[in-house]
Amino acid sequence: MATDVVIGIDIGGTNTAYAVVDRSGTLACESSVPTRGYRSPEEFVAAVSERMRESLKGLGQSVTLRGVGIGAPNANYYNGTIEFAPNLEWKGVIKMAGLFAGHFPVPAAITNDANAAAIGEMLFGGARGMKDFIVITLGTGLGSGIVAGGQLVYGHDGFAGEIGHTIVDPDGRQCGCGRRGCLETYASASGIKRTVFELLATSNLPSELREVAFTGLTAAMVSDAALRGDPLALEAFEHTGRLLGLKLADAVAHTSPEAIFLFGGLANAGELIFKPTQRWMEEYMLNIFKNKVKLLPSGLKDKNVAVLGAAALIWNELKNG
Amino acid sequence: MATDVVIGIDIGGTNTAYAVVDRSGTLACESSVPTRGYRSPEEFVAAVSERMRESLKGLGQSVTLRGVGIGAPNANYYNGTIEFAPNLEWKGVIKMAGLFAGHFPVPAAITNDANAAAIGEMLFGGARGMKDFIVITLGTGLGSGIVAGGQLVYGHDGFAGEIGHTIVDPDGRQCGCGRRGCLETYASASGIKRTVFELLATSNLPSELREVAFTGLTAAMVSDAALRGDPLALEAFEHTGRLLGLKLADAVAHTSPEAIFLFGGLANAGELIFKPTQRWMEEYMLNIFKNKVKLLPSGLKDKNVAVLGAAALIWNELKNG
Repeated sequence: MATDVVIGIDIGGTNTAYAVVDRSGTLACESSVPTRGYRSPEEFVAAVSERMRESLKGLGQSVTLRGVGIGAPNANYYNGTIEFAPNLEWKGVIKMAGLFAGHFPVPAAITNDANAAAIGEMLFGGARGMKDFIVITLGTGLGSGIVAGGQLVYGHDGFAGEIGHTIVDPDGRQCGCGRRGCLETYASASGIKRTVFELLATSNLPSELREVAFTGLTAAMVSDAALRGDPLALEAFEHTGRLLGLKLADAVAHTSPEAIFLFGGLANAGELIFKPTQRWMEEYMLNIFKNKVKLLPSGLKDKNVAVLGAAALIWNELKNG
Repeated sequence: MATDVVIGIDIGGTNTAYAVVDRSGTLACESSVPTRGYRSPEEFVAAVSERMRESLKGLGQSVTLRGVGIGAPNANYYNGTIEFAPNLEWKGVIKMAGLFAGHFPVPAAITNDANAAAIGEMLFGGARGMKDFIVITLGTGLGSGIVAGGQLVYGHDGFAGEIGHTIVDPDGRQCGCGRRGCLETYASASGIKRTVFELLATSNLPSELREVAFTGLTAAMVSDAALRGDPLALEAFEHTGRLLGLKLADAVAHTSPEAIFLFGGLANAGELIFKPTQRWMEEYMLNIFKNKVKLLPSGLKDKNVAVLGAAALIWNELKNG
């Protein structure tokens, strides 16, 4: 009997990764192609689909394709679209799910990367069996996917789960979104870099980071310095954890999750970021929620989470009917 | 043929109101009894149940009781309990839903007042047909009920929807919950009173409220003064709207609702509170959400919303399963 599989696709600004994924979350035929250099989204989808068809052919009669799941920036689940993504070449509204459905006679669905990561965590990772949890992706920005009562929260317009754009301080740091003081300007790879530079200016703490220019500094360098005991780098993690903890306590007051998963570049700093975040989250949380909410690393660490999450999106669709 | 009805009960610190409610939300036999003065919750429930049985008898053979819905402070939907309610005589954990189910051979369910108001709004009020919305009750405190994807968000432990205890300023006003700077210390009947006294101290704005002592001041007096053009009272509404707008913008970033309903004492101030709240919410909202989220008064204004919401809770249960 043939094994049911789906294709999971992660569309990024530079590369698009994909794989064939079975119901247990096993990846096959992992590959990636450049996202840029096509004259239109149609050409891009045609080229990617051609390569996917080859991959499927390689697996022979043993698999039956059941769907195509896509993760992409600024994706709208309800509309099947990518809408005004600043990091992609294509402007305006792209009907991405429809384009893939035109190449494969199966259901296609799309959502943003953080939502895909949340569904991946629910089907294949640390959130298996959980009905209420939040996934926070700490990359260049801060993305989030909220699951409540076993369902991903898409909201009225498909854009729910923007915890990175909740406001820490309305007079705070300039955000790429045009406003000020959004959480992601503090709690993200770029946020901790800004915090380091603020501390370089406001404190006299000794630091090896005093030798580094703004453009040269990375979050990994801050981690490395902190691991070597650099006082300023440690203080930067403390600040980051305090503000992330504050806004996670707010998030808990909204949907009361069983766990919050931290994921992405900055989460790789491990205890450096988990410890202060957990401590401040508890500090700022309403009594009834204290000591209840687990702060966890992703259970999908060794896998291509973006591709797996995209595949999980469509597996979840097929499961729900 | 007999009409199906449920009993809706609103347990308050002083009085307990109840009514017989049909599937269309029509109330009959509205009545209320004192909540205090019973030796135990069991005695209270026995006495209330006796009166309800009388009411039902009065309706004769024409009605069939299908369930009992209860709204109460600190109620936990999952456990059917009232847990450590500071405003009730009974301490600890009261299995209130079970007590009523012992008197009536029908399903009983309980939730807190704001959640009940949200379900009432969904079944009988302005949220009919909406799948994503939030109800904010602006009373002595600030309560909230969040509906996402057509389901009330209860969270992992049944205590979700505590927007009143999201934090405006971790160094801000002392809250009854033991922390500082919770939204309800600013945006509620008691919050606007505190704001008036802060403005009396910090500004030189002329105001009739300079004649009133703290204990004598009510939110209604602030409204009345504002309606007469009192500059300080108007400024107090502006401040309240700014902070409520800020945190509602955060709430939108979580669940992206179609509408937010403002309800309760302070919401009766009408445009005085709606206008600044709407303006600041738009100001603080992420671009993708701007000009999408309706800020509305309750569609249940002329009814006993607490009782109707409690009845709606059980109607919603019966509908879903």
